[in-house]
Amino acid sequence: MPKLSQIQLQSQLLTPEKAQRMAEFFGVLGDANRWRILSALAIQAMNVSELAELVEMTDSAVSHQLRLLRTMNMVRYWKQGRHVFYALKDDHIMTLYREISAHLDEPDETLV
Amino acid sequence: MPKLSQIQLQSQLLTPEKAQRMAEFFGVLGDANRWRILSALAIQAMNVSELAELVEMTDSAVSHQLRLLRTMNMVRYWKQGRHVFYALKDDHIMTLYREISAHLDEPDETLV
Repeated sequence: MPKLSQIQLQSQLLTPEKAQRMAEFFGVLGDANRWRILSALAIQAMNVSELAELVEMTDSAVSHQLRLLRTMNMVRYWKQGRHVFYALKDDHIMTLYREISAHLDEPDETLV
Repeated sequence: MPKLSQIQLQSQLLTPEKAQRMAEFFGVLGDANRWRILSALAIQAMNVSELAELVEMTDSAVSHQLRLLRTMNMVRYWKQGRHVFYALKDDHIMTLYREISAHLDEPDETLV
């Protein structure tokens, strides 16, 4: 493979700003409870109480995590009567989930 | 949509163990410098010195991050003469990168 110049390489590199946004996004996913909640919402939309019962957390703990997931644009919500329902924002989170599940299930073949 | 029973929901939920592994994997990606390194390796395989120059970090800082990325099965490496070269382990990391770039670039349309 022909070597690229330093300028060519630099132009293809993630900028520090974008790298920081990626890091913030993925940092939010570095929490097992959040993944439990996301996997619940991957099944169907739910309100806080339904989520809390399913993932075995308190309503207030679930609400706290949902606020964070909302801030990161990972879930959407709407009011229905006196309940607020939550769902995954889009397919990217599900793709992420499927991709990484596959990745984690691969045997480690790294060797020198 | 017909409501699923609690047992049906539970069976589709991410287990606590798998959720923990997902969280550990994504926790590693919650670091901007690691994303700079991964985006460099997405261009082409490089040794530590080439990487360090490109991402403007010291060799030892890059080595430290590469060890972590290796532990998480995100990069692979091989010896070539006196150099150790690194490359992305597989396509999952790139898919992740593309998916989330797209996600981050979407306008926020969340509303009640």
